[in-house]
Amino acid sequence: MITATLLVTCTDRTGIVANLTNFVSEYHGNILDLDQHSDEEANRFFMRLVWSMDKFSLSREEVPAALKILAKKFDDFRFDLSFSDQRQRVAILCSQTPHCLYDLLLRQQMGELEGDIVLVCANHPDLREVTEHFGLPFVHIPAARDRRAAAEAKQKRLLQKYRIDLVVLARYMQILSPAFCAARPHRIINIHHSFLPAFVGAKPYHQAKARGVKIIGATAHYVTADLDQGPIIEQDVARVSHRDTVDDMVRKGRDLERQVLSRAVRAHLQRRVLVEGNRTIVFH
Amino acid sequence: MITATLLVTCTDRTGIVANLTNFVSEYHGNILDLDQHSDEEANRFFMRLVWSMDKFSLSREEVPAALKILAKKFDDFRFDLSFSDQRQRVAILCSQTPHCLYDLLLRQQMGELEGDIVLVCANHPDLREVTEHFGLPFVHIPAARDRRAAAEAKQKRLLQKYRIDLVVLARYMQILSPAFCAARPHRIINIHHSFLPAFVGAKPYHQAKARGVKIIGATAHYVTADLDQGPIIEQDVARVSHRDTVDDMVRKGRDLERQVLSRAVRAHLQRRVLVEGNRTIVFH
Amino acid sequence: MITATLLVTCTDRTGIVANLTNFVSEYHGNILDLDQHSDEEANRFFMRLVWSMDKFSLSREEVPAALKILAKKFDDFRFDLSFSDQRQRVAILCSQTPHCLYDLLLRQQMGELEGDIVLVCANHPDLREVTEHFGLPFVHIPAARDRRAAAEAKQKRLLQKYRIDLVVLARYMQILSPAFCAARPHRIINIHHSFLPAFVGAKPYHQAKARGVKIIGATAHYVTADLDQGPIIEQDVARVSHRDTVDDMVRKGRDLERQVLSRAVRAHLQRRVLVEGNRTIVFH
Amino acid sequence: MITATLLVTCTDRTGIVANLTNFVSEYHGNILDLDQHSDEEANRFFMRLVWSMDKFSLSREEVPAALKILAKKFDDFRFDLSFSDQRQRVAILCSQTPHCLYDLLLRQQMGELEGDIVLVCANHPDLREVTEHFGLPFVHIPAARDRRAAAEAKQKRLLQKYRIDLVVLARYMQILSPAFCAARPHRIINIHHSFLPAFVGAKPYHQAKARGVKIIGATAHYVTADLDQGPIIEQDVARVSHRDTVDDMVRKGRDLERQVLSRAVRAHLQRRVLVEGNRTIVFH
Repeated sequence: MITATLLVTCTDRTGIVANLTNFVSEYHGNILDLDQHSDEEANRFFMRLVWSMDKFSLSREEVPAALKILAKKFDDFRFDLSFSDQRQRVAILCSQTPHCLYDLLLRQQMGELEGDIVLVCANHPDLREVTEHFGLPFVHIPAARDRRAAAEAKQKRLLQKYRIDLVVLARYMQILSPAFCAARPHRIINIHHSFLPAFVGAKPYHQAKARGVKIIGATAHYVTADLDQGPIIEQDVARVSHRDTVDDMVRKGRDLERQVLSRAVRAHLQRRVLVEGNRTIVFH
Repeated sequence: MITATLLVTCTDRTGIVANLTNFVSEYHGNILDLDQHSDEEANRFFMRLVWSMDKFSLSREEVPAALKILAKKFDDFRFDLSFSDQRQRVAILCSQTPHCLYDLLLRQQMGELEGDIVLVCANHPDLREVTEHFGLPFVHIPAARDRRAAAEAKQKRLLQKYRIDLVVLARYMQILSPAFCAARPHRIINIHHSFLPAFVGAKPYHQAKARGVKIIGATAHYVTADLDQGPIIEQDVARVSHRDTVDDMVRKGRDLERQVLSRAVRAHLQRRVLVEGNRTIVFH
Repeated sequence: MITATLLVTCTDRTGIVANLTNFVSEYHGNILDLDQHSDEEANRFFMRLVWSMDKFSLSREEVPAALKILAKKFDDFRFDLSFSDQRQRVAILCSQTPHCLYDLLLRQQMGELEGDIVLVCANHPDLREVTEHFGLPFVHIPAARDRRAAAEAKQKRLLQKYRIDLVVLARYMQILSPAFCAARPHRIINIHHSFLPAFVGAKPYHQAKARGVKIIGATAHYVTADLDQGPIIEQDVARVSHRDTVDDMVRKGRDLERQVLSRAVRAHLQRRVLVEGNRTIVFH
Repeated sequence: MITATLLVTCTDRTGIVANLTNFVSEYHGNILDLDQHSDEEANRFFMRLVWSMDKFSLSREEVPAALKILAKKFDDFRFDLSFSDQRQRVAILCSQTPHCLYDLLLRQQMGELEGDIVLVCANHPDLREVTEHFGLPFVHIPAARDRRAAAEAKQKRLLQKYRIDLVVLARYMQILSPAFCAARPHRIINIHHSFLPAFVGAKPYHQAKARGVKIIGATAHYVTADLDQGPIIEQDVARVSHRDTVDDMVRKGRDLERQVLSRAVRAHLQRRVLVEGNRTIVFH
């Protein structure tokens, strides 16, 4: 069964849900999942709507045009439409640590992701074997300081060649240029190894140890030009005690990082994430 | 603003959401929250729909009749309709331990509950002072084995007199008769001090200690004639170690019990709970 | 059974545990609990040692002297000795919100605390009834900006009169003077309504909402002159989503605050907390 | 630095800690970690003691003899002594699902385990490639019903040949014979995909769905002849809702299973687990 998923946000008013569900049912679409939320403080409407295309009488090319007409009834209406057989193509950027890479590739193999990781690209050669074990192409692009711009140009060509929809930074450890980030709004997901906004920047586990916190965390967020400040998609935490050295925190952190990153990527690929300003709405 | 909340379940088919949201918007109701779910395995449809009555052009007496007509289009359609100003009236049954009682009464005082606790009834006199501190009537009905039937008859009259919609067993420690339970389907909430279905029955913390589990729990459920087997509304857990004696588990358990029971009562009063067979759907 | 609890820290070297356990057993003390930890990075030794005084052949007055002699064998040796029948006397400072106050007083009533709350003092009169319900004296000391110094002078006299060992700020909402804090090192516990070091300062739930975090927290810490920067004793977190308004976060936060504060106070009263620099070691 | 780890249990009485720590320090061992606990209800003493062998003046062969002499002072004294350079040799038994296998092998690669996985043995050929990717030998021993006994005989020879200390059942899905289990007391760790003792036996996620629980779990335990009844080492849980199908529970369960199993294996290899009757003491 092919399904359509529609993410919508607009200024809140009467009749939006009725209009949209009516639209689906008039053309014989069966609604499978609807999650709607009105933010009364901000007067904004948010919705995720999934319907079956089985008996739907509009072709998938006709749907956007119809939605655009419908949109005129509402203010500041934005939508994102996708079909379940249009799987997003994902590239992973990584460096040397394998835990997030293994986690994503294993989930792909187990069929947990509704998208396709098609490329792994790294600034070190170490993870070639892991990537090839999972049957994927690995490209090594060194990114030393003095050739960062050239490296990024290569990456761009590669992403284009592989028609990449989503870039996942699986502990990439390199800062991307503002232009690179700006060209892919809400299309780059990073894992930060702290519970943001605590411990922004480098060596967060050392910072956590020094501050004596009792809980550490990890944060998956969309990358913007503003380091560690992009919209948060998912977070999780683990308890630590005085017995945990920085190395123990790093170890516990690895477990958090891979889980949090994979959950964020999965939510994105399931089209469950809607960005509004610097925040996300993540539908269940 | 007065709102209407509609819980619906029926056999799944095309057009249910559209029909219902159309109905609301035709009469100028603004949908504030809609959470819908189709269980494909069971072919069942579930929905919670909240709309503003501010400009709604049907009187609240006319809504059920209109819904009954609408229901004829669908199979096995059940609904539960309520209005935000029709606050449910709650009676708490308890014995001697105060922690769940304090928790519920404090939340009432803080305005966390969308209902009104109007009566506390106990088989021991100990909690009179707590109840009266919060300005509520306390009724002591002894319930020793030989006068259980008489006690239950008194309770029934009391619940009738106070027009009680929901009975909350806040560590009541007495078994209610099957007839009493059957007369109040999904209208009695109990807190069981274990992670059901583990450790059914008496002394669950002793059972947990003997089995050497690493996590203990608490479970809030609707009471049915079948002890500890009713539909589960909410559960939570806490870690324990070999250092925890049974007394420590009891102490940690108290924290779980009061939180889990209060969350379940809150969800029920917000009309977020729909019972289907022996399971619940708890909408967010 | 009366027990002695000894907290020790010193520079790490061979034989500290043996020396100390030997000391206890030579005088016929039975060790009930020993938790020891060496921080290899910092080369520091930490220990908590509990023994029964039942057959102990030194009087409790003789123990400190004996320990001081023993201490000379080691470098930078600090210890804290207490006996289980020397219950610490606790004053709670609060303002208007009752949830933390109820939680602490209820735990005292249930026998969960190994200390005695003997006084409640507030800058508003609202919580008098709650306090008196639990049979404790309530003192109202207004603390408006222009009479803060006078208020603090009154508080000091009160703490002296009641021979207070520990001050608990149960959502006190007032900043104490540096002198007041400095006079009570590791003897004032505060609850901050965020997951420190995230969202330092005022209105942390508003900050959390604005940043779009998926988890909120609460932090109990010793108060130092440096606002929200003192040694952290305990933290906990709860999940939030886009559906949670600031009010929902405040409500969920209340549950965190009272649990985290009570756990920190309980650990302190059980002499489980050893402060080292700006961090705490909390023994199990 | 080579360290010795001593696990001890005996009937509780005065002087055990002093005797043991004295013993270590007399021979110039520096105690690095000591965690001791007396179970007053059971009158049992438990301890884990780690010391540096650097300047220790007894050879490692002499230590057990010395401990046996020391043991005569106490009742029912059992001890387990090991040295950090005597790494345990681990065999993994698995079937077809790779998630637990990947997790263990990746942790080995990252240096998280204080032992060595040296063999993977499966009743299906599917996981050969995974095993060989990590550079380990893979042995396929079919175990269909009619040749179960022959298969087990082969396994025994294999375990002997590889001098295996610990067998880990990483979703092995086969029941081992009572004789096989009895021959390896507390030397076989299994992961059960439920929060034991809830949902013993087959298809626990189906059972969990049918019962409508709000939380699912996983349990790592030592295998005894009594199915799913052995001493529990570690457990963890995850939230589920009505939106989760059995497949979703299976997916969430995989995350629990691999984490819980790996944590249990790690604790065992660090000699942190002491079994007492049907329970474990897991030292931090």
